Amino acid sequence: MIEEFTVGRDRELDLRLARYDVQGSMAHIRMLESIGLLKKDELDLLIEALEDIADVIERGDFVIEEGVEDVHSEVEFMLTARLGDIGKKIHSGRSRNDQVLVDLKLFMRDEIRHIAEAVNRLFDRLQALSEEHKDKLMPGYTHMQVAMPSSFGLWFGAYAESLADDMQMLVAAYNVANQNPLGSAAGYGSSFPLDREMTTRLLGFETLHYNVVAAQMSRGKTERAVSMAIASIASTLGHLAMDVCMWMCQNFGFVSFPDNLTTGSSIMPHKKNPDVFEIMRGKCNRLQSVPNEIALLTANLPLGYNRDLQLLKDIIFPATTELIECLDMAEFMLGHILVRDGIVDDSRYDYLFTVEEVNRLVLDGMPFREAYKKVGLEVQNGSYSPSRNVRHSHSGSIGNLCNDRIAEKFRSIASKIK
Amino acid sequence: MIEEFTVGRDRELDLRLARYDVQGSMAHIRMLESIGLLKKDELDLLIEALEDIADVIERGDFVIEEGVEDVHSEVEFMLTARLGDIGKKIHSGRSRNDQVLVDLKLFMRDEIRHIAEAVNRLFDRLQALSEEHKDKLMPGYTHMQVAMPSSFGLWFGAYAESLADDMQMLVAAYNVANQNPLGSAAGYGSSFPLDREMTTRLLGFETLHYNVVAAQMSRGKTERAVSMAIASIASTLGHLAMDVCMWMCQNFGFVSFPDNLTTGSSIMPHKKNPDVFEIMRGKCNRLQSVPNEIALLTANLPLGYNRDLQLLKDIIFPATTELIECLDMAEFMLGHILVRDGIVDDSRYDYLFTVEEVNRLVLDGMPFREAYKKVGLEVQNGSYSPSRNVRHSHSGSIGNLCNDRIAEKFRSIASKIK
Amino acid sequence: MIEEFTVGRDRELDLRLARYDVQGSMAHIRMLESIGLLKKDELDLLIEALEDIADVIERGDFVIEEGVEDVHSEVEFMLTARLGDIGKKIHSGRSRNDQVLVDLKLFMRDEIRHIAEAVNRLFDRLQALSEEHKDKLMPGYTHMQVAMPSSFGLWFGAYAESLADDMQMLVAAYNVANQNPLGSAAGYGSSFPLDREMTTRLLGFETLHYNVVAAQMSRGKTERAVSMAIASIASTLGHLAMDVCMWMCQNFGFVSFPDNLTTGSSIMPHKKNPDVFEIMRGKCNRLQSVPNEIALLTANLPLGYNRDLQLLKDIIFPATTELIECLDMAEFMLGHILVRDGIVDDSRYDYLFTVEEVNRLVLDGMPFREAYKKVGLEVQNGSYSPSRNVRHSHSGSIGNLCNDRIAEKFRSIASKIK
Amino acid sequence: MIEEFTVGRDRELDLRLARYDVQGSMAHIRMLESIGLLKKDELDLLIEALEDIADVIERGDFVIEEGVEDVHSEVEFMLTARLGDIGKKIHSGRSRNDQVLVDLKLFMRDEIRHIAEAVNRLFDRLQALSEEHKDKLMPGYTHMQVAMPSSFGLWFGAYAESLADDMQMLVAAYNVANQNPLGSAAGYGSSFPLDREMTTRLLGFETLHYNVVAAQMSRGKTERAVSMAIASIASTLGHLAMDVCMWMCQNFGFVSFPDNLTTGSSIMPHKKNPDVFEIMRGKCNRLQSVPNEIALLTANLPLGYNRDLQLLKDIIFPATTELIECLDMAEFMLGHILVRDGIVDDSRYDYLFTVEEVNRLVLDGMPFREAYKKVGLEVQNGSYSPSRNVRHSHSGSIGNLCNDRIAEKFRSIASKIK
Repeated sequence: MIEEFTVGRDRELDLRLARYDVQGSMAHIRMLESIGLLKKDELDLLIEALEDIADVIERGDFVIEEGVEDVHSEVEFMLTARLGDIGKKIHSGRSRNDQVLVDLKLFMRDEIRHIAEAVNRLFDRLQALSEEHKDKLMPGYTHMQVAMPSSFGLWFGAYAESLADDMQMLVAAYNVANQNPLGSAAGYGSSFPLDREMTTRLLGFETLHYNVVAAQMSRGKTERAVSMAIASIASTLGHLAMDVCMWMCQNFGFVSFPDNLTTGSSIMPHKKNPDVFEIMRGKCNRLQSVPNEIALLTANLPLGYNRDLQLLKDIIFPATTELIECLDMAEFMLGHILVRDGIVDDSRYDYLFTVEEVNRLVLDGMPFREAYKKVGLEVQNGSYSPSRNVRHSHSGSIGNLCNDRIAEKFRSIASKIK
Repeated sequence: MIEEFTVGRDRELDLRLARYDVQGSMAHIRMLESIGLLKKDELDLLIEALEDIADVIERGDFVIEEGVEDVHSEVEFMLTARLGDIGKKIHSGRSRNDQVLVDLKLFMRDEIRHIAEAVNRLFDRLQALSEEHKDKLMPGYTHMQVAMPSSFGLWFGAYAESLADDMQMLVAAYNVANQNPLGSAAGYGSSFPLDREMTTRLLGFETLHYNVVAAQMSRGKTERAVSMAIASIASTLGHLAMDVCMWMCQNFGFVSFPDNLTTGSSIMPHKKNPDVFEIMRGKCNRLQSVPNEIALLTANLPLGYNRDLQLLKDIIFPATTELIECLDMAEFMLGHILVRDGIVDDSRYDYLFTVEEVNRLVLDGMPFREAYKKVGLEVQNGSYSPSRNVRHSHSGSIGNLCNDRIAEKFRSIASKIK
Repeated sequence: MIEEFTVGRDRELDLRLARYDVQGSMAHIRMLESIGLLKKDELDLLIEALEDIADVIERGDFVIEEGVEDVHSEVEFMLTARLGDIGKKIHSGRSRNDQVLVDLKLFMRDEIRHIAEAVNRLFDRLQALSEEHKDKLMPGYTHMQVAMPSSFGLWFGAYAESLADDMQMLVAAYNVANQNPLGSAAGYGSSFPLDREMTTRLLGFETLHYNVVAAQMSRGKTERAVSMAIASIASTLGHLAMDVCMWMCQNFGFVSFPDNLTTGSSIMPHKKNPDVFEIMRGKCNRLQSVPNEIALLTANLPLGYNRDLQLLKDIIFPATTELIECLDMAEFMLGHILVRDGIVDDSRYDYLFTVEEVNRLVLDGMPFREAYKKVGLEVQNGSYSPSRNVRHSHSGSIGNLCNDRIAEKFRSIASKIK
Repeated sequence: MIEEFTVGRDRELDLRLARYDVQGSMAHIRMLESIGLLKKDELDLLIEALEDIADVIERGDFVIEEGVEDVHSEVEFMLTARLGDIGKKIHSGRSRNDQVLVDLKLFMRDEIRHIAEAVNRLFDRLQALSEEHKDKLMPGYTHMQVAMPSSFGLWFGAYAESLADDMQMLVAAYNVANQNPLGSAAGYGSSFPLDREMTTRLLGFETLHYNVVAAQMSRGKTERAVSMAIASIASTLGHLAMDVCMWMCQNFGFVSFPDNLTTGSSIMPHKKNPDVFEIMRGKCNRLQSVPNEIALLTANLPLGYNRDLQLLKDIIFPATTELIECLDMAEFMLGHILVRDGIVDDSRYDYLFTVEEVNRLVLDGMPFREAYKKVGLEVQNGSYSPSRNVRHSHSGSIGNLCNDRIAEKFRSIASKIK
């Protein structure tokens, strides 16, 4: 009963760590051999056995057997079954803590890469849609009131550019994750003359978490950084989903999707429930709670490893998966979005263009106050007739979206994740 | 009553924006003149008047008068009082939204710099303490159980290195903030041929928030990025405060402070309440809720400016101040910390050294299993006698703190905030 | 500097505790006299002086002077200035902790009453509006898609009934707050033979927090209970504000407000910014973060008073005020709401009534499947013509709102707060 | 792919709703028959079939088959497989929304009962321990500084009484959950003459959610109320776990557990990792984030059912289970707690008793100031010698725990959950 309580879903979650555990162990034993704590022939045997385990993992056949506590024990169990006592030597100069730490860093570094790729795909889709629909106007709202002309070029493009900001957070998380904790042992280092620079090189880390206590403290800290990047992206995606849900409402009717991608009703043929975007919105809003869950879990914990930290896996593992699913689903759905044309022709949007008219008069030389008064008077006496020509030319405006420069900015940030 | 409800503490908060408002207006009108929307002599008059207002602000004499809604109105009011209709021209081709956005970006960019400086000062203090006390051992705990030898060199140094990770988040926030939103007007751009590249240069922004809808969406997004950096730093600092509070407890007695920095009682002379660190811990834990406050405020808000966003100021302004106060207070207090020597000599910490002993035997050639069994036996039959010599030599360990390399890492990250 | 850091905004916040501090002290000294720790004439002098201070407070003239730390010191300072050493006797058998605890309980009990009154006023307003507009239909949405007929009677009435649920949380908070902690001293009781039942009676508490450690632990716990009730009410109010903002959008146009209660523009005469409801929505969403702020502040704090708890005042005091302001503002604004009639006559809402038609046929004897098929066919071939007569009769439906029974339910819950 | 995205873990979660779905359907069809929408013989057939399904569920054999979306569809599928078209009649006058709503209310009402029972068991255990160890003193801390004498009687008893406060929140949640939403259809009621009072009686609900829009709005609201009660209890339990972890630390050594309930190490025989309490602390801290997750999911959602709400199941279902597991585990572990005796005899705790000494002198007639000075002097010149006799007699103090009266209070609150 106690084991069930303390181990929880760990066995299941640990499956995702298996490949990283093998990777970490390989680096560790190569280093052990280099400092004389392992013989060359032992190393060779161990590497060969670990490579076989890696194959099992890649084939999807790796399981953590009943009664085995976690992935680290399972790997050790497989090694000793094959090599006897030599199998146990992968633990020399290393503690369980150490092993989990390095596995998690490698895992999170990889997940960040996967997230970055999914963000990249969505970015491309949004930019393509922005270009495709750049001439389709729609009303722009402030305070949810019809305010100024906007366009689908602006709308799709805005979400693309916003993802560039989120990418900054992801880069930060990547930099935090991309540091080698291996060698911190139980969080206070070891009296063995470990060569931590060597494992750093072997595992492709950018640098070390030098100080062993800092390495230990990075548990929670790394997850938090990743969760903040996740929350940032989720916030952007959640808003996109909200826009779509609202604009599919009959009172707006700006966008739609083919019938097979929505849920309908034969007696209410107008009804197209945007289930996918509702679920996406909901998932993205939940994802925004993840940094707070981590804060609550770790606040005021005393120094050094505490077992509470094990629960971090249960928080961060599903979060990365869920985010990637949401990103991919958004990219897929937007590939089928139907954008209505001629939206602003509706008389309900007449006043969208009054500011345009005032500005036109000003550019033609009339002082602003007079221009404003003139248009106000026309509106009042009903003689105002909107010209729906919108000629915005400055950088980032309807007529000059700067999608190329935005793409350049995005690529330059994204390229920091390797 | 309605005004009181909607304006709230805005007047007070806006004082902190005054200097940035003037800065933004100067850049805007220089650009207006360059595209022919302002005459050279009008520009000169306005610049001169704005410079005078800037002086008033720097002297601390700027006030937002009763009945004036916000800082933007106050500045305009001062300009028109002096220059009449010309004073109003600072608003051509710009909306209130636009103005607030650029003020906030400039403000947050500066606050991030101040935070970075305070982090820097604390980092230096921690590294100096790490060096000073590097030979003082203390028990290292796992699961709050006495586990392995640690040291004050490790402890101080760990917090220093952790700040380097937090700095990654601060750099991300800086990059998000350091983009020019000016020209986005009410969030949908303008029909004036604004030169946004020029204002970007004049205000020293790294790049533009090109897409005007993205620029508007950066309201909330920027605050959130800053809040995440704040929460990261606060988490590190909160843990430091927790350690100090715990170690001042008579049951540990590892550190102390001079009487004038703690609160005592004459009939309980041992009692030294660590009020400063308790308040610091509390403030830092609250600061960790800020990203969540922003998430709740902005989740599911429809596209475009909504007045709810005004409340962001009330969340983020006090947070930056509070964090800087906590950082400075930590730096000050640690300047007076008293570290007890000889802690591990207490017999209660005897078992700290068993792993050291096992490792020593292994390094001398004994197989690990035998060494472990030997020490276990000694412990069992009471013949175990700890050697308190700790000879850790690997990177980041007690005997090899790598503070120089950590400093190098820290500087290289911090240097991205200019 | 340290004092500024640790005291913070406490002096300002403490003003709200003044009347409760005097109340608590009066009860305490009456009890002291009853157990012989104060003489009758001392009691009389102290009571007289405290009554004078109470007058000063009621007149709004009470101030905490520069250099005086908090309200408790100020009251003691005033007493000793008048009565010398006798003034200090109000502290016998009581610690600062004790005093703050009882002040806070009395304060929160009162604030809960004020919140309950404001909820009550809003409930009455909503019910009145529900009755007034019960015949005005509007579209009901699911998935933000036009779905079924609804009415303003339902809409206003729904928010009223929802407040009854929130009131359950407020009752719980009231019960938690309405317990006497006085006598817990520093959190571990006292060797004086205090008569805690007497102070319970004198202060009108329902019962005691008997166990003195439990009494101390109620710091934070009580605030959390109050904050949860606040968050519940804020959630209801926030949704109401969201509905209003959305329905004032030109794409809905269901409700409106007189010009003097909204913000407009002379060149966009249609534009009526619902600033009040946007700010209300924002404030209510922030208020929902309060329980989490308290959780973060208190999670993992070691047993016994920790000074972090002082920061609770800074969280909960503004929250109660803000909630009451939001409730009052909602009640005031709704007093002026303009409800559009004839909304569902628009052809866009034709399909609202298909389910009604199917049900009508079923009630007339046709099997559901056939009825459904028949209406589906009519819709398909364009012969469907909606009857806009809605005859819902069951409890809680458009035609049978049950407002009386809802009022009865609400009163019965609210009556538990005395 | 879309189905996988939108359905998620729903099938798995829905298994827990099965019994309530059958219960709700039985009440619904009995009512349908009473208003003539179902014939007597149809009712009999349906009831019989539903009873058989109920048996399958109780035996644990119920499964939601591949390709079937949820529990409601599975039940309908089973009915039509057996009864043909009659099976579909359970849906007359009812929508999916309606069905989920009533299932969830029934489910949550039951879960609340289970939580209450687990709280009850823990309460009894704590009170028994309080009585058993009432004479064992321990140091009481303020600011984590040794301050005043406390006792294990106080400590165990305090957590018991605190649970009474949490129970208030649970009662509120129970009252919110215990209302009948059935008949609200898609959230806007039905044109069928449903007898909602009858289903209220049949399902044992205390009252109705009368207003059908309010009934729909209770989705999310009910979960939030339950989550707040969960968070309250989790907070209490989390603090208890923190105390245990801290006191098992060698620097305190106040409590311990038999070896088989902790994790040890043969070379560090003193080490007893309190894994169970660490995991409990972690789980309880995470549970405190649940109300916030719900707030984020629901904030600013437009009126009416939105599919986001489906995700609530994924939040609240595991939370109730996890809380009950934590409560049961705490109760089990505390059944084996080992409490050290004679703790305060250690000279490190000498000053615990100075306030006792001052009070003793005061009770013997010496003015407080003199008594305080006298003891202060003794402490200063080293002549102070603590008497470890603690004679606290007031209600709720070491010598007068009032456990009976606390039990009475607890029972009176808990009895409101039936």
